[in-house]
Amino acid sequence: MRIEDLGEVELIKRIAQWVKTKDKDVILSIGDDAAVLSLSQDKHSIVTVDTLIEDIHFTTQTISPFDLGYKAIVVNVSDVAAMAGLPRFALICLGIPQGTEVGYVEEVYRGINQASKDYDLTVIGGDTTKSNQLTLAITIIGQVEPELLRRRGDARVGERIYVTGELGGSKAGLELILKADAAIDETSSSALKKAHYRPQARVLEARIASRNGAKALEDISDGLASEIFHICEQSQVGAKIVSEQIPLAAGVREVAELYKEDALDYAFFGGEDYELVFTALRDRGEEIRDKIVTETGTKVTDVGEIVSSSNGVVIESSGETNPLTQKGYEHFKS
Amino acid sequence: MRIEDLGEVELIKRIAQWVKTKDKDVILSIGDDAAVLSLSQDKHSIVTVDTLIEDIHFTTQTISPFDLGYKAIVVNVSDVAAMAGLPRFALICLGIPQGTEVGYVEEVYRGINQASKDYDLTVIGGDTTKSNQLTLAITIIGQVEPELLRRRGDARVGERIYVTGELGGSKAGLELILKADAAIDETSSSALKKAHYRPQARVLEARIASRNGAKALEDISDGLASEIFHICEQSQVGAKIVSEQIPLAAGVREVAELYKEDALDYAFFGGEDYELVFTALRDRGEEIRDKIVTETGTKVTDVGEIVSSSNGVVIESSGETNPLTQKGYEHFKS
Repeated sequence: MRIEDLGEVELIKRIAQWVKTKDKDVILSIGDDAAVLSLSQDKHSIVTVDTLIEDIHFTTQTISPFDLGYKAIVVNVSDVAAMAGLPRFALICLGIPQGTEVGYVEEVYRGINQASKDYDLTVIGGDTTKSNQLTLAITIIGQVEPELLRRRGDARVGERIYVTGELGGSKAGLELILKADAAIDETSSSALKKAHYRPQARVLEARIASRNGAKALEDISDGLASEIFHICEQSQVGAKIVSEQIPLAAGVREVAELYKEDALDYAFFGGEDYELVFTALRDRGEEIRDKIVTETGTKVTDVGEIVSSSNGVVIESSGETNPLTQKGYEHFKS
Repeated sequence: MRIEDLGEVELIKRIAQWVKTKDKDVILSIGDDAAVLSLSQDKHSIVTVDTLIEDIHFTTQTISPFDLGYKAIVVNVSDVAAMAGLPRFALICLGIPQGTEVGYVEEVYRGINQASKDYDLTVIGGDTTKSNQLTLAITIIGQVEPELLRRRGDARVGERIYVTGELGGSKAGLELILKADAAIDETSSSALKKAHYRPQARVLEARIASRNGAKALEDISDGLASEIFHICEQSQVGAKIVSEQIPLAAGVREVAELYKEDALDYAFFGGEDYELVFTALRDRGEEIRDKIVTETGTKVTDVGEIVSSSNGVVIESSGETNPLTQKGYEHFKS
């Protein structure tokens, strides 16, 4: 059997069986957004790693080296945010094809450095090597107070489901970048492209949510559907999402219309928005929403509720309920 | 200017300027074998990362997937040993080409798991992705008691220079693997190939050395010459190595003769032996040697001494002294 017949989700399950993943100091290992270690008494350490490979995750034709470096950091910081942690340290592995200009590599690091400043990170090491494809593998180490740590498996029936910011923008931006002929208004267009090139990680928002009673917490890296399924699977609950409540980024509807696609698919399956999804009892959720808006300016939207696992994961649209399919982006499978 | 004109050493110097590398909790960052963080009061955390890429660092024709996984762990564990630390946790990033058999990937992880058992490591996470070249990027987190931490910059004039085990075996093994027609005896041949396929990291040896007065400590990943230069540069000293004292692995001379090369070059510039080089005052060095032999069975050899920086780095051969050249393996440059 080949890897592409197995798929990423099944592969990760198998990897967790092939290797030893338990230790007294391991709080969370394979299966959440990041690993969590108990290395000191007052704070847990969060470790996460993500690889971006040319022509798989990006092309040098459509992203500047500065944005590439910046985004590579944000992608990983977002996984630290998903645990309600603060990013602290980064290790950068760069695979560089023969013939690459030093100026190009410098720009990648300038993007990394800008993101490091924006998220208060220190670069402590890494690795440089030759490779055929430009490759960026970034490890980030963060910290979280044990009582603030939030997992995917912490959702309970009756809690509301909230998302920060707006969804679908990154995918719509990518469509505009790839198909340059799109005729939508300039302001929306450049905002959508920026959502794709220069996403932000919701570090402060996650900490406010966690401090004020959020339960399950995740970042939205593979599309809202995929993250909801993670929460439901690990919390052993179901979910009902109200499609009319999904906060679509401005211009997403126009882009979807242009390409004859469903705008909601951009939010559910588009990925790379790096917003947060979290659950909380309604009272706490409304308090969190107010605090996040006041302290960060980021909006928070109630998009549905956690229900019994027997109800499955459903989406309500114009009063009609249908099962939500799980077609978020999976590596290997096409 | 292109990356191959700049070279890896200069690139790393520039990277250290391009990004923020200092923080109150960073004990060591870019420039040693691993980064060291002060995350808890009683133990420092050691973080190291290394990438192995198909056709750059290995070929699937000449190494089994099991050995590839095993070796990828050892390479990183060796960097933790170089700080006199104990490895604790690993994150595995695997880039997998289309069409790869699941059984192949499983074997890689079985190798990783065996090495994890041998070095008491727990796999806490990672990343799987498509890529054109099989790629293994491994992050290892270890721990070290602050008083045991050893750096490259800790050598002082008058100390002796010691190496563990035998050198040149990995390079000689690689030559035999690549040029299958070699006629040397079977026992040496298979030992040399094993030195290349299944190197060992000297974790216990490093801790014994550190506990008993070793000063500068490093693992020999890029050849002895390169490591000696690192120590001399960062300690601002010189070194005199006695070529007759270099402990060559059995069969290295025969392989070198076969290919009309200098056997010493295998030790100085071959790389991938993953032995240790450390400095210590003679009394302490002899005590360390005895303890390492008794407790681990690994031999330790006195190969020279730390001298004033004004004497440079020299090699003494048949009583004649010549400057040691720095032609250890550098990525990018050919």
